[in-house]
Amino acid sequence: MKIYTKTGDKGQTSLIGARADKDAPRIEAYGTIDEVNSFIGKAMTELDEARYADLLEDLENIQNELFDCGGDLADVRKSPKYKMTDEPVEVLEKRIDELMEEPPLLERFILPGGAPAAATLHIARTVTRRAERQTVTLMKADENVPAVVQRYLNRLSDYLFAAARVINSRAGIPDNEYVRSAKVFKNNGRAKKAEE
Amino acid sequence: MKIYTKTGDKGQTSLIGARADKDAPRIEAYGTIDEVNSFIGKAMTELDEARYADLLEDLENIQNELFDCGGDLADVRKSPKYKMTDEPVEVLEKRIDELMEEPPLLERFILPGGAPAAATLHIARTVTRRAERQTVTLMKADENVPAVVQRYLNRLSDYLFAAARVINSRAGIPDNEYVRSAKVFKNNGRAKKAEE
Amino acid sequence: MKIYTKTGDKGQTSLIGARADKDAPRIEAYGTIDEVNSFIGKAMTELDEARYADLLEDLENIQNELFDCGGDLADVRKSPKYKMTDEPVEVLEKRIDELMEEPPLLERFILPGGAPAAATLHIARTVTRRAERQTVTLMKADENVPAVVQRYLNRLSDYLFAAARVINSRAGIPDNEYVRSAKVFKNNGRAKKAEE
Ligand code: B12
Ligand code: B12
Ligand code: B12
Ligand SMILES: C[C@H]1O[C@@H](n2cnc3c(N)ncnc32)[C@H](O)[C@@H]1O
Ligand SMILES: C[C@H]1O[C@@H](n2cnc3c(N)ncnc32)[C@H](O)[C@@H]1O
Ligand SMILES: C[C@H]1O[C@@H](n2cnc3c(N)ncnc32)[C@H](O)[C@@H]1O
Ligand SMILES: [Mg+2]
Ligand SMILES: [Mg+2]
Ligand SMILES: [Mg+2]
Repeated sequence: MKIYTKTGDKGQTSLIGARADKDAPRIEAYGTIDEVNSFIGKAMTELDEARYADLLEDLENIQNELFDCGGDLADVRKSPKYKMTDEPVEVLEKRIDELMEEPPLLERFILPGGAPAAATLHIARTVTRRAERQTVTLMKADENVPAVVQRYLNRLSDYLFAAARVINSRAGIPDNEYVRSAKVFKNNGRAKKAEE
Repeated sequence: MKIYTKTGDKGQTSLIGARADKDAPRIEAYGTIDEVNSFIGKAMTELDEARYADLLEDLENIQNELFDCGGDLADVRKSPKYKMTDEPVEVLEKRIDELMEEPPLLERFILPGGAPAAATLHIARTVTRRAERQTVTLMKADENVPAVVQRYLNRLSDYLFAAARVINSRAGIPDNEYVRSAKVFKNNGRAKKAEE
Repeated sequence: MKIYTKTGDKGQTSLIGARADKDAPRIEAYGTIDEVNSFIGKAMTELDEARYADLLEDLENIQNELFDCGGDLADVRKSPKYKMTDEPVEVLEKRIDELMEEPPLLERFILPGGAPAAATLHIARTVTRRAERQTVTLMKADENVPAVVQRYLNRLSDYLFAAARVINSRAGIPDNEYVRSAKVFKNNGRAKKAEE
């Protein structure tokens, strides 16, 4: 059996447990999760192993979790075997809390960019938000969707924002503020601290 | 208050002045503007500061203007306070006119690529055109949209084309022509000149 | 005549033979083909000319073929002059067969990434699949679409997967497997061989 099976040449393709049009909202959503995964793979090629070991470990876990998410969205069997749980969402939250302590306090929107990997993670952040929007579309059209996938994508986009900031901070590259920004962030995502 | 507020975990989120489904056309449009902004941030990391100082200055202005555009699309208050005006559109036009004088005359479609930053700006160009398409969708669905945003995106995609060509021209990398292209460009975007 | 003609500032634009709203499915589809083309141009900047001469040759042909595809989708004349044929699809199949012999046998999903150009081709792969989905949407809405374009995009995404694996294999970078993957690939896309 070859990698190209030609079974999709008429515009339909296989889910786990059924066939569907290639442009179904379900396939749109996991196709974009695959796109997110690819941008994360790209950012990983731009990260120095010594200085960013913690982020590289996070990102490899995230790549695996994105496959869990995609596989769960592809599963339309009567009794689907979902892989995603709330645990990876909680791990992301813990990591966001840790990472947000590292860069300088943030009050205004920042211009995406800085170090190469930070710039790529900003792209991944926006593609993740696109995947989240498409997951919402799917959930409105079809109830057989584990809600944790959308929560995970929502948190992932905030993780990617935090990680991009940490990369720039460790690289000594300041994040430039949007010049006409109001003070939109409340306390930089940190619990209020007396000493700040 | 943390950066992840969890307020969007049910599929709805906040605009300036209302709440909406995350997959509303309005959010789609400014979400893609954020994606454009990220690709521009990426291209900036690939540009030498000395040789491309003029383009880096343009691109930083553009990043700020994209935030103006996104913020205006997010503003659904009865009396919205729009930031975008026609002025940045005119500045882009002036810059396109200047930049198009630099590379060799163009008659046929060119293959996107060349120097790293030129290749990234071609990507940004196509994502900008996606943002423009989604802004058109939004304008057809909802009249509370400042029309200048679509004009700005339309011009921006032409600016990014011109900038990609200038990068390759300064780097001494010729743009390869699409081999089966007809002569599609009329006079390379320049006013007809006797000496050419 | 300047490059910015302003004729699209009202949300409509020209096809070959008609005008249409900028967010028509047809324009969506060839706009995304242009996006694919740009990511391929990007990957080409990351490939060493000596080691990857064969892939660079493939990719330049593909860039030209993507213009053929885009032009064909733009052509809505009564008697359109299509450029795409089945031949480039067959060439892709031959190249996939050749390339898939090179990297180690594959049974499980792999995490996108590895060498820079491999990571970028994984992105191009997912954007190609988006272009394929939008072409399917177009074909469902409108019958004036040469079906070979969808077949070409379907095969192209498999070619890009194979090419990404070859790049990593030549660079001595192993593809990491998705840790919770089942054995999803049947015989690595190769004809079953006794000695394997
Ligand atoms: C969902 C899916 C995807 C998703 C990935 C899933 C995700 N998690 O996000 C995405 C969109 C990313 C994807 C991408 C690709 N995919 Co895909 N994908 C599938 C699909 C629909 C399901 C695969 C899956 O996850 N199955 C779930 C597992 C758990 O099911 P299972 O394998 O049947 O396993 C069950 C049993 O078989 C058993 N089992 C499994 N292994 C074993 C082993 C033993 C010993 C035993 C006893 C039991 C057992 O346990 C499981 C219990 O449920 C299959 C088609 C299909 N319906 O199988 C194609 C498929 C695997 N994909 C295919 C291809 C070609 C690709 C791409 C190369 C396409 C491309 N050009 O981009 C890429 C490769 C991506 C990569 N990085 O490796 C082809 C492979 C063709 C081949 N030669 O085998 C398939 C078969 C589709 C097809 N064309 O027919 N894919
Ligand atoms: C639109 C928007 C975006 C747009 C950006 C806008 C654009 N221009 O394109 C996009 C989509 C890009 C975006 C991205 C993000 N955003 Co946002 N965004 C918003 C939103 C809806 C509006 C912000 C805004 O522009 N307000 C307009 C300004 C003018 O309004 P304002 O701040 O209220 O200011 C008014 C008054 O307060 C007063 N004012 C303002 N400052 C001051 C100061 C003083 C001293 C005084 C007297 C008055 C005053 O003046 C203004 C008059 O109108 C807010 C939610 C909300 N409704 O506020 C979230 C919000 C700011 N975003 C948030 C987040 C988390 C993000 C992201 C990190 C998400 C992600 N993971 O990608 C990114 C960060 C991007 C970056 N590069 O920095 C969170 C921040 C949470 C927090 N801890 O504070 C918010 C609050 C949403 C939420 N979850 O509740 N965002
Ligand atoms: C389809 C299209 C695209 C597609 C490309 C097609 C594809 N293959 O994927 C995409 C979306 C990629 C694209 C992108 C761009 N495009 Co465009 N595109 C067009 C469009 C609609 C058709 C062009 C085409 O392929 N025509 C098919 C050929 C075969 O037709 P033709 O040129 O008329 O040729 C026929 C005859 O004239 C004759 N002929 C042709 N040459 C010659 C020469 C001689 C000597 C003779 C006797 C006969 C002859 O033979 C042909 C027989 O059918 C035109 C508008 C239009 N309707 O012409 C804009 C157009 C060419 N594009 C334009 C622009 C600006 C761009 C972009 C810069 C936009 C951007 N910012 O991204 C990019 C550039 C991309 C690049 N890499 O170079 C402008 C150019 C403006 C100018 N100053 O001339 C045009 C004119 C649209 C407009 N605004 O009015 N485009
Ligand atoms: C920070 C702001 O971004 C918007 N927002 C929230 N979720 C998404 C998404 N998935 N895609 C694009 N924009 C989003 C909301 O307006 C929020 O307030
Ligand atoms: C150059 C050609 O690109 C097409 N075109 C115009 N605007 C867009 C857009 N936002 N996205 C994709 N294609 C577009 C039209 O067909 C135009 O003639
Ligand atoms: C490998 C798996 O990817 C899915 N699939 C097939 N074609 C596309 C596409 N254009 N976009 C996204 N997913 C697709 C099917 O579910 C297939 O089985
Ligand atoms: Mg969010
Ligand atoms: Mg235009
Ligand atoms: Mg396929």
